[in-house]
Amino acid sequence: MPYRSPVAELRFILDKVVPLAPVAATEKFSEATSDTVEAILTEAGKLCDGVLAPINRNGDLHPAKLENGVVRASPGFKEAFNQIAEGGWVSVAGPAEHGGMGLPLTLAIAVNDLMAGANIALHLHPLLTQGQIDALEHHASDELKALYIPKLASGEWSGTMNLTEPQAGSDVGALRTKAEPNGDGTYSITGQKIFISWGDNDLVSNVCHLVLARLPDGVPGTKGISLFMVPKFIPDENGNPGVANTLKVVSLEHKMGLHGSPTCVMSFEGAKGWLVGGPHKGMAAMFTMMNNARLNVGVEGVGIAEAAYQKALEYAQDRVQFKPIIEHADVRRMLAEMRAETFAARSIAMACAVAIDLGHAANDAAQAARAALLTPIAKAYGTQTGMWVSDQGIQVHGGMGFIEETGAAQFYRDVRVTAIYEGTNGIQAMDLVGRKMMDQGAAAFALLDEVMVDAKAATGFADLATDVEKAASTLRAHVEMLLKQDTQDRFAGAVPTLMAFARVLGAHFHLRAAVAAGEGSAYAKLAQVYIKRLLPQAYASMTEAEVGAADLYALSVEDLAI
Amino acid sequence: MPYRSPVAELRFILDKVVPLAPVAATEKFSEATSDTVEAILTEAGKLCDGVLAPINRNGDLHPAKLENGVVRASPGFKEAFNQIAEGGWVSVAGPAEHGGMGLPLTLAIAVNDLMAGANIALHLHPLLTQGQIDALEHHASDELKALYIPKLASGEWSGTMNLTEPQAGSDVGALRTKAEPNGDGTYSITGQKIFISWGDNDLVSNVCHLVLARLPDGVPGTKGISLFMVPKFIPDENGNPGVANTLKVVSLEHKMGLHGSPTCVMSFEGAKGWLVGGPHKGMAAMFTMMNNARLNVGVEGVGIAEAAYQKALEYAQDRVQFKPIIEHADVRRMLAEMRAETFAARSIAMACAVAIDLGHAANDAAQAARAALLTPIAKAYGTQTGMWVSDQGIQVHGGMGFIEETGAAQFYRDVRVTAIYEGTNGIQAMDLVGRKMMDQGAAAFALLDEVMVDAKAATGFADLATDVEKAASTLRAHVEMLLKQDTQDRFAGAVPTLMAFARVLGAHFHLRAAVAAGEGSAYAKLAQVYIKRLLPQAYASMTEAEVGAADLYALSVEDLAI
Repeated sequence: MPYRSPVAELRFILDKVVPLAPVAATEKFSEATSDTVEAILTEAGKLCDGVLAPINRNGDLHPAKLENGVVRASPGFKEAFNQIAEGGWVSVAGPAEHGGMGLPLTLAIAVNDLMAGANIALHLHPLLTQGQIDALEHHASDELKALYIPKLASGEWSGTMNLTEPQAGSDVGALRTKAEPNGDGTYSITGQKIFISWGDNDLVSNVCHLVLARLPDGVPGTKGISLFMVPKFIPDENGNPGVANTLKVVSLEHKMGLHGSPTCVMSFEGAKGWLVGGPHKGMAAMFTMMNNARLNVGVEGVGIAEAAYQKALEYAQDRVQFKPIIEHADVRRMLAEMRAETFAARSIAMACAVAIDLGHAANDAAQAARAALLTPIAKAYGTQTGMWVSDQGIQVHGGMGFIEETGAAQFYRDVRVTAIYEGTNGIQAMDLVGRKMMDQGAAAFALLDEVMVDAKAATGFADLATDVEKAASTLRAHVEMLLKQDTQDRFAGAVPTLMAFARVLGAHFHLRAAVAAGEGSAYAKLAQVYIKRLLPQAYASMTEAEVGAADLYALSVEDLAI
Repeated sequence: MPYRSPVAELRFILDKVVPLAPVAATEKFSEATSDTVEAILTEAGKLCDGVLAPINRNGDLHPAKLENGVVRASPGFKEAFNQIAEGGWVSVAGPAEHGGMGLPLTLAIAVNDLMAGANIALHLHPLLTQGQIDALEHHASDELKALYIPKLASGEWSGTMNLTEPQAGSDVGALRTKAEPNGDGTYSITGQKIFISWGDNDLVSNVCHLVLARLPDGVPGTKGISLFMVPKFIPDENGNPGVANTLKVVSLEHKMGLHGSPTCVMSFEGAKGWLVGGPHKGMAAMFTMMNNARLNVGVEGVGIAEAAYQKALEYAQDRVQFKPIIEHADVRRMLAEMRAETFAARSIAMACAVAIDLGHAANDAAQAARAALLTPIAKAYGTQTGMWVSDQGIQVHGGMGFIEETGAAQFYRDVRVTAIYEGTNGIQAMDLVGRKMMDQGAAAFALLDEVMVDAKAATGFADLATDVEKAASTLRAHVEMLLKQDTQDRFAGAVPTLMAFARVLGAHFHLRAAVAAGEGSAYAKLAQVYIKRLLPQAYASMTEAEVGAADLYALSVEDLAI
């Protein structure tokens, strides 16, 4: 059975678990009714199931190639991308005045969930363009907006993000790419960038690079960085691709997975660029792009978890060893937990998206703070779920899971990068316990209070509600403890703290789903699985996080090398 | 820095943590002194570091190929294998009267740990031969022993295990391969086998297949299965490879990893075979082979964990992002936990090996029962550790971890199969809570009592000892609970129960190491990391295991498909 987009589950989540209704109640998004959600997801689902998923393996078997300086995408990708573009799927949440659908980000995120499950490698192409539209919309001049966004939103052109350099990964401020003013309002960009996804491709007629670089008067570190639009072909007076810019793809990386997405080493050799945002304001613009990108990467993990789960579920029904293996308790445990994890990660991602929309459309600072808090959790837990579920997917397949033809291995290889790119999961966790706690825990406490109030109201599920309430209250105390820790101790416990948050929130949304779907429903049963089996891990995570950093630094480098 | 065999750690473990001394005190293994251990491990280490590790990537980049019916190994593998053979490393524990070194299995296992870390794909070749020697030694006629074992032990010939068929994986009894008596004491074997590692190769002059098949009067299921020796070339009157047998390699699998080890589909077409063990006694013979193979697969996981850890440690020292990344608390946490996990898994594997040796050499039934108990734990936890450490190894490398040239990804891909082959980790866990508890927990209680007594005596480490004692006592109560559960509930909790055992035993050996190495030592610091950070996971595992199976079966297949 091929991949089927989980449209019904997303609709259920947006109806009952993380309601989109408050977003649709804003003036800005009054169109985002339940009917719109249904129409959008159903159409996107058809494209995913019928067009994107069937060519997913093409990307793996026939990676994008660099030929005479041009990147040729995998077979079938261009035709599939054309359908993405024609359906308007590049810009679900983009500004309507520039050709986007103007819908809430939540719907774009939901569509991205479906598309990532169908074909993550191809989907990364429009996803990067979405991020670029977002950055331009918030930071570019009206002229740049008018020139670029319509072409990006229509899928005529595509966008990339050029941050990383060999010496500058997590430490973006260490970048060396230079921008020299040309005197005519444009800049001359010189430097090398690595890990540039879809840095070139033959799906579109122009590739627009957003490049971080330092102006001559830029101070060292992140405060001296500016952002530039550097197109592959410089638009002519009619806005069509004109003269070739002085930039090129040097090589493509050989990666463990995601072969269908070309990862380029880019060289900018005095390439012409236009400033986006003010001088030295590059990081602010990057963060606009990155925040939503982080949520989207989390959703990539969720999408792959879904696909890996569906494949494993099918195999477990077909494969007979003594009896259909789905009847073996251990296999059923794996499947139930895979399903429960995927639902939890998806709900957290959608909750983050709804909070972003409410923050913007209702100008609600508390929701914006919630979105900021949830973003690193959605990213790290979503990707961790993708890795864990695809790992269990292989295990359900037994020996066949290790054979590439099965397809389970591709999910496992593809998803692995999601825990790394857009800020490693360690960086996400440090963001959570560092920057996102600069409000002295206000956003976290507000959220956990809501979890506890919600649990108290969960009639019919008293046993589960008690577990959720207890875990939330323990996490609240953990956050209070954490706020007293120094930075080193906090960072040492960052990843386990993030996982504890994810478990508590996962349990919270499962409980909501159980209440909404009612006793005896599939969601009530899944809630039971998650809360009784997986939620207890939150306590082990908190215990670890509370250890602090002293034991780690007591181990010298020599000790580690014994 | 290239791979360095962890000789010092293995010596420390065998001296102080899981002493080999009681084995060396037996008449059979009186030669296994500390000096012998040093000599053996040092020599094996030189071969691993200088010869096997440098060609590890060859196997990945240039997989074994099937050419005109013959499997050609990866470049450099033949030369390296010749050195393995010349050093006598194929048969460290093989019988001295047939050319083995006659040393304790523990030493063979320790050498396998080193070799798997250096080059798991090549090492699988002599590992399978070791298993075959073991099976022949215990079950074959004197004639077969005299004919085959010397050639296998010297590395002139190699051995394979032919169990799996497309419909018969975990359910070995479903096999369809037939054995017809030829009337002259030989048999005619017909059928297809899959997943046959090194099913053919050009490293040796003959490939000896042990094949499970059913005689005409064999009952259905495992009780009707017999084991046959089916050589690629039938030995002539001088014992040299003679006429080609009617068997062939049909194809090689395309796997996610372990590319250097050819995984063959084998076809036996009336091939001539000789019975090993009595008619219908094939499973007993297979289990001899499989038990040690399981421990060895666990050790493969440990070896890869070691190699992945070393690579990550080196990168973390070299890579600067703000500061050398090893100075970042989250990276240091990953490294410390990787190191602590590897030590724990290695100690458990060695404890299993020592128990096997004592069971045999001292004819000690309690030690044999302990070995039986520890085997599934050593297999599943060793391989889980290999997967987890290689996953964290990628994470430490950040973006570079996803690029194949780095080498971190190869460990991640290669090790994945170890959780599957020789019985999936789920099967191991079912073995632990099922068959290995048929003594009503006697072996488990004896071991846990020892853990508790040992903890009480751990002077200088009272805080850690208290944690270990408490966890062991909780696990003891968990086992008592488990003995009252029905099979379904037990099996639903099998994997978490196994993990709880592993955590408690890992903590036990860490505590021993701390006591042996003394306060302030690297091992004392690692014990702190393991016991305070990772041991608490045992409680979450036990909580999950105690849930039982009802919630899983409450979820119908339709529920799972929502």
